Amino acid sequence: MSNKPQLYTSISPALLHLYDLSNSVVVIIDVFRATSTIASALYNGARCVIPVDSVPKAIEISKRIGGIAAGERDGKIADGLVHGNSPLEYGRELIEDQTLVLTTTNGTRLLQMALDNNADSIISGSFPNLSAVCDFLVKEKKNVVLGCAGWKDRFNLEDTLFAGAVIDRIRDHFTIHCDSSLMAERMYDAHRKDIYGFAPQLTHYHRLVERFGLIEDIRFCLTEDVANVLPLYQEGKLVRS
Amino acid sequence: MSNKPQLYTSISPALLHLYDLSNSVVVIIDVFRATSTIASALYNGARCVIPVDSVPKAIEISKRIGGIAAGERDGKIADGLVHGNSPLEYGRELIEDQTLVLTTTNGTRLLQMALDNNADSIISGSFPNLSAVCDFLVKEKKNVVLGCAGWKDRFNLEDTLFAGAVIDRIRDHFTIHCDSSLMAERMYDAHRKDIYGFAPQLTHYHRLVERFGLIEDIRFCLTEDVANVLPLYQEGKLVRS
Repeated sequence: MSNKPQLYTSISPALLHLYDLSNSVVVIIDVFRATSTIASALYNGARCVIPVDSVPKAIEISKRIGGIAAGERDGKIADGLVHGNSPLEYGRELIEDQTLVLTTTNGTRLLQMALDNNADSIISGSFPNLSAVCDFLVKEKKNVVLGCAGWKDRFNLEDTLFAGAVIDRIRDHFTIHCDSSLMAERMYDAHRKDIYGFAPQLTHYHRLVERFGLIEDIRFCLTEDVANVLPLYQEGKLVRS
Repeated sequence: MSNKPQLYTSISPALLHLYDLSNSVVVIIDVFRATSTIASALYNGARCVIPVDSVPKAIEISKRIGGIAAGERDGKIADGLVHGNSPLEYGRELIEDQTLVLTTTNGTRLLQMALDNNADSIISGSFPNLSAVCDFLVKEKKNVVLGCAGWKDRFNLEDTLFAGAVIDRIRDHFTIHCDSSLMAERMYDAHRKDIYGFAPQLTHYHRLVERFGLIEDIRFCLTEDVANVLPLYQEGKLVRS
């Protein structure tokens, strides 16, 4: 028991600094929708995804390397961009062999924070690539921090439910003494049979569905293993590991 | 519906600044054990509780006004003090007509943060005074922020369970669009029949029981309405309202 690696869940970017990342695999979790989109793009053959923190940077880099600039602010396609943060936008016909340069409200910011806190390694996770994430974490045998992106530093349930789904699958391989992880696991267990039916109670659901009509995005983002690849961060890019 | 006041739950002191406190009643929640101790002391006749942020300040003020200096750091009586942060310490024979000058790891710090963020009014809550808290919030008809003290900025479940207990009782009087509140309510509902039986899974339980043997404290802190007074913060003091 005691020589198993440790697993923690950080339920907001504002709490990430409380955990020792230098010794951990950090899983960036932004279920609605950045990490679902990243999984989708890589699953459909994107060469890589370059996460950046601003729209001008996304445009500048994509022009320079011949990539696709994309991103959202507050749930809609960012001003100055043609492509947004929908996983359904990145079918094979658009994204195969392309580089996606992506900026989002929460997920890309959290990834930068993990870098700033010297994470040992960084992957991205969401329901569409749940199995790939779990397989990697079990294989690595390192400490894990499940990093929920939340919404502008506030707690959100969809990211925590995904953390709970990971814990539910891999808990026997880790030492877990962390109320956030216990809560995540309990919430997932209570709703695992119908997460899609639970979704209308989440604040972010209202933001995406009532304001932008993105019901199909929600469905994709909550479906396990429909884009089951492992996005691994290496030298500024998320690549399919 | 729309003209009901709003209720939010802040699950860590590090997130408190995300909420508009200037327009809200802030409930300071530190179940293990500061706000349970505050309820106990006032219930047993203390004139008031003065929360302070350091041991020297607790000693200095208590000497000056003839009060009882008390407090803990990391779960045990702070160096230099005789009295700690156990609600069971403050029976009527010790505390009646006395002033308690209290410093704790998390709860008193959160109270200071609520002051710094210009809270409209501040009360303290825990299971021993659950009904008094709920009655006050319903009567006031103002916005509410349930402020969980956590443990050194980490999320903890006991404070969140108390937030859930409050929401369970008063939800019809408020507009609630907040994933933290939804989570708190669900966790409380799942464990309400045996919170004491759930407690051994909490990290703070291990800190208090395995290291310090404080099982009777835990039991008191999780029992509803055994010290059912309303501690209201006024001019530097928590007084029985």
